[in-house]
Amino acid sequence: MIRVIQVGLGPIGQKVTRQLMDSKQLEIVAALDIDEGKHGQDVGVLAGSEPAGIQISRNTALLDASFGDVAVITTSSDLERVHSQILDAVTNGLHVVSTCEELSYPWIVAPEISKSIDEAAKKHNVSVLGTGINPGFLMDFLPLAFSGLCFGVRKVRVERVQNAAFRRLPFQQKIGAGLTPDEFQRRVQAKTLRHVGLTESMHMIADTLGWKLEKTEDIVKPVIATEPLTTDAMSIETGQATGVNQIGRGYQDGEEIISLIFRATVGEPASYDRIILEGSPNIDTKVDGGINGDIGTVAVTINAIPAIVAANPGLRTMADMPVITCLNS
Amino acid sequence: MIRVIQVGLGPIGQKVTRQLMDSKQLEIVAALDIDEGKHGQDVGVLAGSEPAGIQISRNTALLDASFGDVAVITTSSDLERVHSQILDAVTNGLHVVSTCEELSYPWIVAPEISKSIDEAAKKHNVSVLGTGINPGFLMDFLPLAFSGLCFGVRKVRVERVQNAAFRRLPFQQKIGAGLTPDEFQRRVQAKTLRHVGLTESMHMIADTLGWKLEKTEDIVKPVIATEPLTTDAMSIETGQATGVNQIGRGYQDGEEIISLIFRATVGEPASYDRIILEGSPNIDTKVDGGINGDIGTVAVTINAIPAIVAANPGLRTMADMPVITCLNS
Repeated sequence: MIRVIQVGLGPIGQKVTRQLMDSKQLEIVAALDIDEGKHGQDVGVLAGSEPAGIQISRNTALLDASFGDVAVITTSSDLERVHSQILDAVTNGLHVVSTCEELSYPWIVAPEISKSIDEAAKKHNVSVLGTGINPGFLMDFLPLAFSGLCFGVRKVRVERVQNAAFRRLPFQQKIGAGLTPDEFQRRVQAKTLRHVGLTESMHMIADTLGWKLEKTEDIVKPVIATEPLTTDAMSIETGQATGVNQIGRGYQDGEEIISLIFRATVGEPASYDRIILEGSPNIDTKVDGGINGDIGTVAVTINAIPAIVAANPGLRTMADMPVITCLNS
Repeated sequence: MIRVIQVGLGPIGQKVTRQLMDSKQLEIVAALDIDEGKHGQDVGVLAGSEPAGIQISRNTALLDASFGDVAVITTSSDLERVHSQILDAVTNGLHVVSTCEELSYPWIVAPEISKSIDEAAKKHNVSVLGTGINPGFLMDFLPLAFSGLCFGVRKVRVERVQNAAFRRLPFQQKIGAGLTPDEFQRRVQAKTLRHVGLTESMHMIADTLGWKLEKTEDIVKPVIATEPLTTDAMSIETGQATGVNQIGRGYQDGEEIISLIFRATVGEPASYDRIILEGSPNIDTKVDGGINGDIGTVAVTINAIPAIVAANPGLRTMADMPVITCLNS
């Protein structure tokens, strides 16, 4: 059994907890959160499962190899905020798997932080990985895996398109459905409406394929309803946003060689994930229906735990780890 | 530059040679073949490229770390035959990448040979990998990679379907197109008409996912023309074979949990590769047009060379290597 300390008990941390409780190979041994309202609660009950017999705590002294083997950190997308949590875990002898999007490939955007994590992990003989479905799999690992079938790749394009009509209200709100264009734009500027990780995915692709990007863009725009729409959860009027269209673009020698498109709207005709490599040969591959983001992220995180325990010490990425496979736990 | 010794100069070895000659990171330094008719020929000219200044030789003393870093072995599908070539290379300090299908996951079918290769490689601090498009990628690595998005996987099904109408005559002949059912059956029994590797792919999947297969099957059958067909290369009469339908089946507790289907016929309506995981969640992914087998195998082989040099010593498989990506050489 691998002993796991769960750090962060928001929606993703709660889903991870449920999977840990169901697992035959992993066991949850402690749970930490900064939210005082959660302290003292049983982590299993909070996660909507059986009581786990483990109270949620703020006691970071639990982040220690004498209590566990791996810390799963699901606290924030922002690497500057997660950085000290990672160093705490690592310097106390714990491996780390985190859903922090900016940790998925931090070497280019945050070289100093990357170096400090890598050095601390090597010093304490543990490994650190940022992963999830996206970034971590669909828009970076998977196109890289397919690139192995090519003699040369000139361009990478990934499309992740989701019809949000059948998703829960929080997801529809998260993608800006029902907002006026002005309110949508305000939230984009406040960085409360955006998918984090396109830049990290672009750098993972470029760095691994030996490309030097002189510029990256990450542009978030609303998709506007041209007629009224009604879902189980909300009504959208003509002129309001049905959702988001976000594009990451990476340029080399003035040419756009990476295009990562995340589009999620209420009323999108079809959901799918598609990877297109322009090269020798071209490759065009598609996942019909698309992969559910929360499920994929929680599954990759859980499945990465034994892999990170076995990995070479240091800051790892999905591009230099052995393939992460289903634990069937 | 990584120095490569090419062993075996059949069609695949020649294609590898052309790519090595084009590469900025790899260089061909010696070429070996057992065919006396090839000895003394320039390997570049034989491969249909510029002269390489390297004569094809039978001198196995060239298989040595003083001449090269990696041996690429493209001699046979049969691991018993390739075994001694691998040991020769490894004991003389060379890493090995091979297209030998039975080397892709030999641990279950050939545990003694696997152990001898693994021990020799570790002793000499080098790594050995059997790879290609299939086995090595489409029917084993890729479903395993997608399994990382699942909490549980109950069944794996892969379909590789190819329309051979536009392929070269040798490929159409290789899949039995134009044969009578009796002649087709004779070639299947003589093992001259079959795709090698379905069993290895099944074991790679099962072993990695923690499944115990009590039985595997590998069944080769003709697809019979129900009307006359004509391609640029041949005519097929009603009642003759249009190609092959080969199925690998893996059973656990009496249930077929792995199904690997390779179907290549003249007149197949569409070419595609499809991976279906039955689990939580289900995953259904498809490569439209399919991946050309020769191109994919040569590309993966070339792209694996820097990865095998960097890998942990021993007998590696695609399930325990970092992802192999395009060298863009």
